Formats: sequence, structure tokens, C-alpha cells
Amino acid sequence: MGGNSFGQAFCITTFGESHGGALGVVIDGCPPDLALDLDRVQAELDRRRPGQSALVSPRKERDQVRALSGLFQGRSLGSPIALLVENEDADPRAYALTADRFRPSHADYAYARKYGHSTWQGGGRASARETVGRVAAGAVARQVLEALIPGVEVLAWVDRLGGLQAEVAVEDLDRAAIEASAVRCPDPAASAAMVARIEAVRRRGDTVGGVVRFVARGVPAGLGEPVFDKLEAELGRGLLSLPAAKGVELGSGFLGADMEGSAHNDAFLPDGLGGATTRGNRSGGVQGGVSNGMPILGAVAFKPVATIFSTQDTINRAGEAAEIAARGRHDPCVLPRAPALVEAMVCLVLCDQLLRLRAQTGRVGPAPLRPVDLG
Amino acid sequence: MGGNSFGQAFCITTFGESHGGALGVVIDGCPPDLALDLDRVQAELDRRRPGQSALVSPRKERDQVRALSGLFQGRSLGSPIALLVENEDADPRAYALTADRFRPSHADYAYARKYGHSTWQGGGRASARETVGRVAAGAVARQVLEALIPGVEVLAWVDRLGGLQAEVAVEDLDRAAIEASAVRCPDPAASAAMVARIEAVRRRGDTVGGVVRFVARGVPAGLGEPVFDKLEAELGRGLLSLPAAKGVELGSGFLGADMEGSAHNDAFLPDGLGGATTRGNRSGGVQGGVSNGMPILGAVAFKPVATIFSTQDTINRAGEAAEIAARGRHDPCVLPRAPALVEAMVCLVLCDQLLRLRAQTGRVGPAPLRPVDLG
Amino acid sequence: MGGNSFGQAFCITTFGESHGGALGVVIDGCPPDLALDLDRVQAELDRRRPGQSALVSPRKERDQVRALSGLFQGRSLGSPIALLVENEDADPRAYALTADRFRPSHADYAYARKYGHSTWQGGGRASARETVGRVAAGAVARQVLEALIPGVEVLAWVDRLGGLQAEVAVEDLDRAAIEASAVRCPDPAASAAMVARIEAVRRRGDTVGGVVRFVARGVPAGLGEPVFDKLEAELGRGLLSLPAAKGVELGSGFLGADMEGSAHNDAFLPDGLGGATTRGNRSGGVQGGVSNGMPILGAVAFKPVATIFSTQDTINRAGEAAEIAARGRHDPCVLPRAPALVEAMVCLVLCDQLLRLRAQTGRVGPAPLRPVDLG
Amino acid sequence: MGGNSFGQAFCITTFGESHGGALGVVIDGCPPDLALDLDRVQAELDRRRPGQSALVSPRKERDQVRALSGLFQGRSLGSPIALLVENEDADPRAYALTADRFRPSHADYAYARKYGHSTWQGGGRASARETVGRVAAGAVARQVLEALIPGVEVLAWVDRLGGLQAEVAVEDLDRAAIEASAVRCPDPAASAAMVARIEAVRRRGDTVGGVVRFVARGVPAGLGEPVFDKLEAELGRGLLSLPAAKGVELGSGFLGADMEGSAHNDAFLPDGLGGATTRGNRSGGVQGGVSNGMPILGAVAFKPVATIFSTQDTINRAGEAAEIAARGRHDPCVLPRAPALVEAMVCLVLCDQLLRLRAQTGRVGPAPLRPVDLG
Repeated sequence: MGGNSFGQAFCITTFGESHGGALGVVIDGCPPDLALDLDRVQAELDRRRPGQSALVSPRKERDQVRALSGLFQGRSLGSPIALLVENEDADPRAYALTADRFRPSHADYAYARKYGHSTWQGGGRASARETVGRVAAGAVARQVLEALIPGVEVLAWVDRLGGLQAEVAVEDLDRAAIEASAVRCPDPAASAAMVARIEAVRRRGDTVGGVVRFVARGVPAGLGEPVFDKLEAELGRGLLSLPAAKGVELGSGFLGADMEGSAHNDAFLPDGLGGATTRGNRSGGVQGGVSNGMPILGAVAFKPVATIFSTQDTINRAGEAAEIAARGRHDPCVLPRAPALVEAMVCLVLCDQLLRLRAQTGRVGPAPLRPVDLG
Repeated sequence: MGGNSFGQAFCITTFGESHGGALGVVIDGCPPDLALDLDRVQAELDRRRPGQSALVSPRKERDQVRALSGLFQGRSLGSPIALLVENEDADPRAYALTADRFRPSHADYAYARKYGHSTWQGGGRASARETVGRVAAGAVARQVLEALIPGVEVLAWVDRLGGLQAEVAVEDLDRAAIEASAVRCPDPAASAAMVARIEAVRRRGDTVGGVVRFVARGVPAGLGEPVFDKLEAELGRGLLSLPAAKGVELGSGFLGADMEGSAHNDAFLPDGLGGATTRGNRSGGVQGGVSNGMPILGAVAFKPVATIFSTQDTINRAGEAAEIAARGRHDPCVLPRAPALVEAMVCLVLCDQLLRLRAQTGRVGPAPLRPVDLG
Repeated sequence: MGGNSFGQAFCITTFGESHGGALGVVIDGCPPDLALDLDRVQAELDRRRPGQSALVSPRKERDQVRALSGLFQGRSLGSPIALLVENEDADPRAYALTADRFRPSHADYAYARKYGHSTWQGGGRASARETVGRVAAGAVARQVLEALIPGVEVLAWVDRLGGLQAEVAVEDLDRAAIEASAVRCPDPAASAAMVARIEAVRRRGDTVGGVVRFVARGVPAGLGEPVFDKLEAELGRGLLSLPAAKGVELGSGFLGADMEGSAHNDAFLPDGLGGATTRGNRSGGVQGGVSNGMPILGAVAFKPVATIFSTQDTINRAGEAAEIAARGRHDPCVLPRAPALVEAMVCLVLCDQLLRLRAQTGRVGPAPLRPVDLG
Repeated sequence: MGGNSFGQAFCITTFGESHGGALGVVIDGCPPDLALDLDRVQAELDRRRPGQSALVSPRKERDQVRALSGLFQGRSLGSPIALLVENEDADPRAYALTADRFRPSHADYAYARKYGHSTWQGGGRASARETVGRVAAGAVARQVLEALIPGVEVLAWVDRLGGLQAEVAVEDLDRAAIEASAVRCPDPAASAAMVARIEAVRRRGDTVGGVVRFVARGVPAGLGEPVFDKLEAELGRGLLSLPAAKGVELGSGFLGADMEGSAHNDAFLPDGLGGATTRGNRSGGVQGGVSNGMPILGAVAFKPVATIFSTQDTINRAGEAAEIAARGRHDPCVLPRAPALVEAMVCLVLCDQLLRLRAQTGRVGPAPLRPVDLG
């Protein structure tokens, strides 16, 4: 009920504030007897880490992960896997100066009204540092997925930034092309323009938003639990729980809403293996809330970071009008770090749904088709 | 785990298929001792009912609701409230002709791969008839909300249809303006164009999608449970679990992703009551995943209905290439019925979050602001 | 949160009051494509039904079950299975006379304090009629268990009644021996004495309690989820949620607490199949919260029915001293009907745990043993 | 689903094995803005700690607790509270000698069959060290209870050990009387006999079981969620999830099963405050699964520790007959440490139920009684 758990069969619970002692996650329900590579967990944390380039927050955090439980001789025990990252560069002094005023479009005010007692030391639980736990867990989920569905692949990239739209051929995309870009946009021309845009925005003390797009390939048909835990619904929940996320679409999304059925429908074609592929994939790999075996496609809209260096109107904690101009260490743009977050959430959803499918059906893949019985 | 429950404190479980015996919902956790008006439940079912106008499915269902439990002398007992609607016009004969072939962009194929055994009699659990249960429960949730937060109001309307965009002044909007339109679009000019579009589409045997927008007014600050059950996340999950929903946005949504922080931020202003209002509401009433007291704004993209009357390529249940052309009773457009669904999901999310806020804090409204302690 | 759901992978939600419209259950997460026999559901309802013999409540209820959803052509669809039983003989008139006074050791008073608004028409949700839903669901769970674990068997019987102790050789026990007794005690001599005791108690307008014991045979090693959902914990929760249950023990139970380890331990012996049996079964088939492949053994203590015909001190709804003597239709002893309830709860727990084991491990049986790696 | 979470509104998730890096708990849903005293958490951990007297395990663990998150300036933030205890004296060498053989009546065998991969270094997750997390969380739950229900008190004591029965006047009992005894039995004569029994058993290399009894005073009427989360059911689940627990009873328990209703019923008497007390308390403070305002009474049976120093028959990990005699550091009797565990679980259940009551009703105490409406 507290809102810090995600997933039912592969269930994670995260904890930690930006300026508290540590951040972490407990993973409950991980399949036992799987070799888990902590270096891959660390690698994902490094992708979401601040300070990794000049484009993101300069906060210095090594974000070194430590496994406290759930592993023995490198393999999962089936008991909870607790992963811990200590806060190292948690310097709240910059926040003291403006602690009596609410930062516009931050969580400060809403948290103060919800909880009564709240921290003035950075964003607390609302900080993007919270995502350390989910990224670590997502890196475990990805390894579970790979063990159960050989060939599965989840990729996310910056598709749009400050109105600059990339052109990306999703079929040919690989992680190298994404990581080759400082903003994680695999379109080199767009990437260069985005880098320039971030630099310009940073110089103005401003920030900018964008869109991350993702694909999950090799996902078998059958994932998603109608009617409330449909795959779109679970992906939507997971992705909209990310800091600064304000929109999600699957498949054709908002553009599809303008279309007619004859143009939107994905015709079925025999796949030669007893099942179907589709001509087109406006469904985004999900029909009726259940994966159909095609690539799962979607996107997340991130608003611009709220911390800007110009002076803004606000109120203080006495409810009086006041002004504020941000100080401290902040990102001009979260987009370059966001693909790690999006991939983590997609992996968490798919892993949970895969284990749920296995609970109900005993399978991690589709049932064979069979003739209809009109009886 | 089965995916047919929604909410934690105000928890609903729905059941029923399009051509089974009945549809319904069990509501667990409803506050006791509240007067509940079943006529208002019926009224919401009537808004989502097929056959209510020439623009929607001609299936004849009275959708008469019956309360089986949880009420005594018109007031809630605190025990589960079960609401039942019998299927009356469940005629599967039209489906028998094409039962051996999968309908493109329907759930048939994905369900067959997931469950092995599936019905050929209409959409089964994937039919929009499934929403009877959630609409009935949403109408109860709305009454709980009104009892605990006097003045709360949840409105949804068709904002866009087949690319036709309405102009709506949200501040002045009321339900009468929405209900005055056959497509539930409160912009009369756009409404007329939308009606014409639906008629045209229907004549061509085609279908069309659109966007429903909603507002929840009078919601106090403090609703939403970071970090995974943020208000955006829960609204996103609920709305993306609706049939045909392919996208959700809150506040500025995808447009906000193109903005800079200085333009996007909502400055705080004293509200004269010890709290804040904002100048602008690009946050859509939610910051850090928690409501801030401003109107909650969002939108849902619905793809066009998959059932069209032209011939499409598909495969049959032997995995062979085949053709199909739809028969049966179907909507050219679900949009006119969708506002009832969207409002139901928003009410369910808000009601659940309100009771969860009460569990943790004892309040159904915000805590007073207080000075910061730099100690 | 509302307390009317049980199980996570095989999740049931029940509803209904003694004098409301109907009772029922929604089963979510049932494996698809299983043949389910509704006659077997009816048969279990008949075993728990009032009016089945002179020893139990004379209320006349046929308790005819109707499946509303989740089945097609006799097989499960994987969607929620809703089962309904209408109340027929719900005559509240007898209760009107004493409606202003709380019946001692009934739920009336506690419910009135909890919910504010409560029914005076019989026990409402606290009535043993509530168990209709769980018995129906238990009969489905049993069929799922049998499909996934051939040879599994769950038996419960009256082992003690009013201090009369039966002698039962559990190894040889079958259902026929239990059903041959009007009190469901397979020891003929004890059964006769128990029947006489119930008759005597009834003549005095009094009631009597007892103990139901159960065995689950053929359960594979590996069921139970440490540390909070251990098999003992889940059985304990399920059984202590039954009306009038006041104690539960597994294996050696309270007697085992008096023993020393050397006498209590169950030595392992090779089972000839690569695993173990045990010499003795004081563990009751569960070690460390996980089944070890031996028969699961346990017992439930039921207090005497609270409704007695002598005059008792009580208070009225104004908080004043008053007297009450029961009227209406009641059991002198619930024990003869209790085995159906106990078996249902054991089947529900085992079925849920089996699907949870399958989610995490992919198996419905034990992993092979393998050498230890001291590395 | 993984089984390592407990509670819905006050939800804890524990992690850690006996010979892993650390043990801990994440508490989600704790009310915000409460002063929490970590010294009281440490004090409860000290009560459950090994090495605290000559009667219990000599393992040397300081069990020093560290708060990682959820607190700011000594008050709860409403975000997850993570509490950590590092393992210090985790010496697995003693276990290496017998690692290839299963210890009778331990969890080793069942875990190996369930998970495939398991640790041979002590009990792993099945060790009583697991209880560190729940005891720490229980100490927080107790503080929440005290803040919301002034005067509430939860006490547990050793009531029986190796067949030696204490005489305890529950009405006059306080914690000092319990803590004055090395075995935590407040009957001095019984305490002395129990100490002697443990010493004798230890000399023989054997172990002994017993019964812990508890009382919760000052609990308001209204806690407990029918029908599956009745107070007895939740207490039963929590207590039967403790290591070595094999039975639970509430109120009259198994003795009550031998009684007649006229002797068992608790007559209601006016309490002078508009409510009721009862004459006698065979209900143990719970009726219909809901607290009635009287003291909540119950007991837990603990089997003797499985680790004994005599030679026992067993099998090895190849499935062959073998012998084993324990080595390592073990308790001859867990009973002296068990009251801390029992109190923790009772506090966790009551705290969760109190917040759930508040979610549904807005109250943390009973509703006023009111006249019946026969309408």
C-alpha cells in the first residue's frame, strides 16, 4: 500500500532519499539457481549515474552496488536479493539557503501537504536518485528474462529532445548505436543537434524535455494480464512512475487516434512456425492487452527539469509570496540518462508478466494454435 | 495476480465475458455507513451502454444493475458490494461463420496463444462489455469521493475524433455541455463535424479513433503514493487498461516534452488559505506524483475499433493464410461511450488514493504548512 | 485491503451476507484450458449445506450454484470464474425481536463498533453462510490440484467433539469412511457417541465445539513461501479465518512443544527415488515452512456455537444492561459441516502455493538433489 | 508473491540469510511525522539477540541497527524506512563438515527440493537470524501503535517449557516481571524449574520446546478485516510464520473446543462508557474476527530446536543413507528469545489492522453505538 513496491511475481521494493544514508532495493520472487552478474548491474547504474558526461548533473556519485543477500556462489537462492548503494556526495548545504521556499514544479509543496513533515535537503524521496533502486533491479530482471527467453532484447533511446526529432530505423537498431551518442540518440545528426541544444539551454540556466522511445524484441506471445494488468497498463504504470514522465504511448499511440480502422489494423500473416506475424505493427506488439509476438513499441514523454536558474515566483512555508532562483547541482536535461530508466522499467514489467504467465499456464511461451470447436 | 482486480484500499474485482451469463464487480473496502444511490450507478451504465444512439453498437442490452450484497437499508455495510448485470442479447451466431479465423488487431490471436483455450463467441473477456463492471464500480467510487471531499467533480469528454480537434474551455465546462452532444464533445461545431465523420465512416464499413480528455476538480493536495503508485502512474495504469487505449498523458504530456523549464514551470502563488495555487497548470495538478490541489488534467488516446467490414488478410487456427470480413454488431467509434469509462477509472484511482492517504496520515486533505527546521 | 480476498496466484474474492440477495465468489488466476466439473462444486456445497441432517441447522437452502463467467464449453478460459448461490430461505423475522440487543460471543457487537452501520438480520457477513463462496472456490482449487498433481488427496474429519476423542488411523483413511458418519467422524464408536452428544446438547438448547483434523497426501516437496507465507502460516491464516475457529496446529502442534528434539526430529530415509521420506512425521510434512513430500497434517479447534437458548446477560444498542435468549434456526454444532470448510481452505492454500512455486521455479514438483559445492 | 512481505497498510519486506552480508527490513506505509526512537528498536533486537545469556546460542552478534532511509530529524518522512544489521560472526566453517548431509527436521532438505540451489552455510534464509528484520520492524510498529492508541501494551512470556507449566495472573502482568526471568517466564518458581530444565537438556546435547503466551491490552474495538483477514487469521499467519512455530490459539483455543456454548459465551456488561465489557474473555478479545475492546489473548507452540548433538539417521545429497551429528553454535531452547518475536508479530498485525481500519472508516477507534432501525 505504501507505493514503493512494483510487480507481483517479480516484486521489488525500493528505498532511499537523495540526502539520506543509502539507496537500495529488495527483489522478492527472483527465480532460484540463476547465475547473476553483478557487473551488469553496475554497468546499468553507471548508465544512469550523474557525472558521466558534461551534459548531466555534476553530482559525484560512484553508485557502487553491494549485494547484501539472496546470492550464494554467484547464483540466486530464491530468497530476497537486497542491493545497496551508499550516498557519498550528499551535500545539503546548497539547499539550506532556499529551504523556506517551495521550488516551482518540484515535489516539495505536494510532499509538504501530503506528509506534513518533509525534508528540505534536495528532493528527498522525490529526487531522481530514487531510481538507483529500480535500475539495479531492472538489471537483474533483464538477466532473468534472458535466461528464460533466449534472444530477448530491450532497447531505449532519445527520440526527441527540445522539439528535435530523430530518424531511427528501429529494425536495425542496436545498443552500440545508442551508446555511441552522448545523448543516447542513435541518429548522428539529431544527436549532434541535441548536444548543442543541451549546451545552449545549460548556458541560459534553463532545461529541456524530450521523448524516449523503446523496443522490446523477442518477447513471446502471451504476456499481459487482462483486464487491469494488461501489458499496456503495466508498462504505462511503470513508465509514468518515472520522475518527470508526463505521457506514455504504446504502438501507434496518439497518432493512431487520428486513424481509421482499415489503415490501422495489422493484418496477420503466417509466420511459417504455426503462428502469425503482422503486416505493420501499429498495435505495438500488444493486442487486447496481451503480447502477440511482434516487437513491443512505446514512448515516454519527459517534461523539462524543474530546476532552473532564473528567478521564479513562489510561496514560502508560511504561505506568503516569495521568489526563488535555484542553486545546487542539477541536470539541464535528464534525457541522456533516461534510457537506462526506461529499459529498467520495461524489463521489470516483462519479467513480472513472464513469471505470472508461468504461474497460470506453466509456460513461458505461447500455446500452440488448435482448431475451433463450434460444438 | 490474475489481473482482474484494481485498487488496494478501494479494491474492485470484475468478471464476465461478452457472451457468458453475466458481468459484474465485487467492491471490497468501501467505507461503511454511506448512503449509496443505485440509480446513479444505473445512470453511468446507461452512458456506456450500447444502443443508446445511432452512433454506437446496436447490441440491445438494458444493462440493468442488481446489488447482491454489501448494502442494508440503502447504506453500505463495509462488506463487499457485489453488482451484477445479466447478458441478454448475447447472440454468438454471427461469430460462428468466421470462428476459425483470427480478426486482425483484435485480441483473438493473443488470447489463443496465451490461454490455449479461448472463445470464438465475440471478444469474450476482451470485449468492451467487460467495462460494465468497472463503470458500475466507478459510480460507487464517485459517491464515496463526494461524501469525503464535498465539491469534487470528474468530467471527461471527446476532445478529438478522427483528427477533428475540439476547442474546450475547461474552466467553464460542465456535464450538461458534454451530454448535450451525441458524441459527448462539448464544442458544438466540433461535435457536429464528429457526428458527420462517424456517419461517413460507418457507411464505408470503417471505424475511427480519437482522444478523450478529462479533468478532476476539487481534489485536495496529497493524493498519490510515491514512488511506483504516483498519481500519474495509477491514472496511467487505469486508463491504459481500457479497451483500445494506446496512450495517456497528464498535464502538458507530449507537448510538454518540447518545452523548456522556464516556460513549463508552474509558479506558486498564495491561495489566501495558507496554501498555494499555481500560475498555469502544465503539471496537470500533480507534482512528484502527488496532487497539489490544482485541477487534475489528462487525456487518453483510443485507436479505431478493429472490426471493419472490408476484407482483410489473416490466418486461420491452423496457421494458414486466410481472409476475413467482419459481421456482427459493432461500433464505428467507441469515443461517444468512452467518457463514461474514463470517468470511472479516474474516480476509482482517486477513491483508492484517498483511502490510502487516510490509512497513512489519518487525513483526507492536506497537512498545514509549517516552518522549516534547519537544525 | 478489504479482507475478502485470499490467495495471490489463485486468488478468490467472496461476497454475500446471510440475509442479502446472494453469496458468491470470483476466482482470478485459474489455469486455463482445464475441464472443470460443476457437479463436484455442487457436491461440496451440499456437504456444507444446512438442513442436510437432523444434526445441523434446519435452514432450508438448496445452495444451487450457477457459473456466471470464466468457462466455455466446460473448460476454463483463464478469465475470472464467478460462481453464484442465491439466498432462498432468508427470513429475518425471527431476528427482529432481539434486534436491539447484542448476542453474546457473536460478531454483532464488534461489527457495530467497527462499521457503525450493521445489519440486525442474522449474522450478516459474519454468518457461516459466508463460507458458501470459499467452499465453491475450494472445489475448483481441488480440481486444479488434481490436474497438476495426479494423486493428491485432501481429507478432513471430526476428530474430537465435546471432549470425545476419536481414534483414527490416518494412513488408511478414505473419504467414504468419513462420509459414512453423520458427524463425519470415521471412528464408528466415537461417531455414535458424538451423535448422542449433539442430540443431548440440542435438547438442552446448548451447543458444543470440537476439533477437525486434516491430511493432505501426495503433495510434492517445495510448497510454501518463506518467510511470511510459509505453508504453516498460510494454512494457519486460511483455517483461522473460518467462523468459530480459535486454534490451529500443524504436525505435532501443542504436544510437540512438550517434547525434546531427539524425540521430535523426523529422521530422513532414502525413498528409493532420489529423495527422502521421514521416520515419523512430527513435522506434519512441513519443514522450514516448505513441504517436504510427506503427508501434511493439521487440526483446527472450533469453539461451540454462540447461539444458545438459555437467557444470557448482554447490553442493548443504547449500551444498557439487558437479557437475551436466542430464537431462530441454528446449529447445535458446526462440526459435521466443518470438514467441507477445512478441506476447501487447505485446497485453496495448496493450489495458490503450487502456482506460486510454478511462477518462481517453473516446476510443480521438487528439483533433483545435487552435490554440494564447498568452493 | 515472494513471501517476504507482511502487512498491507503497514507493509514490511525483510531480507537476509544467516551467513550472508546483512539482514534488514524495509517498512513501507509508516505514518509520517512521527518521532521514532531507534534506541527502542535496538532494545528489541537486544532481546532477540543470541549470546545474551548462557541459556541461548553463543553466536556473538552485536546486531547493531542502522537506519538507511525514511527518517529526517528523528521523524518519519512517510517514505520507506530501511533498517540494516550487518552479519559479523558469520562463520560457516563448522557447517562444511556436514554440508553433504541434510539435518533432520531442518529446512535444508525442503529448501533443496524447492529451490534447487541452496546454501550449506547454516540455515540460510531459514535461520532464526531471519527474525532480525521483523523484530526491528515490530519495534517501529509498536511506536506507531502507541502514538495512535495511547495506553496500548503488548506483552509475551514463556508460559510452558518442556511440559513445565507456569501460573501467570495476566491482569497484573508487566514487562518487568517477564524480564526479571532468564527464560522470560514471570512465574518465579516455574522460571527456576525451566532454567534447570534447559541446563539439563543442554548437557545432554538435546533441545526442548515450549509455549509462549501473549496479551495485547488497550486495543480498541474494530480491528480485523472479515472474512479472510480476521484478526485471528492475521495473528495466526504472523505467528505461524515464526521459525519453529507449530501451533497457535486465540482465546480459549483448543480447550474451548471441549466446552459447551453456555459455559463458553462471554456475557456483555455495560462498560459505563456507552459500550461493553465482557464477563470472562474466552473470545480472547476477538469476535467474528474483529476486536471487541477486551484484551487480546493467544499462545504459540514452538517445537524443540532441531539441532541436537546425538547421531541421527539422514540422507546425503546423493540420496543415500547417512548419519549426522550436529556441530556449530545453537540454542538448546529458543523460548527465552521467542517473546521478542511474538511481540513483534503481534505489533505488526495490530499496526497494519489499525491503519486498514483508518483507511476504511477514518477512525482509529470504535464507532458509537446507535439504535437499530427495524424499517
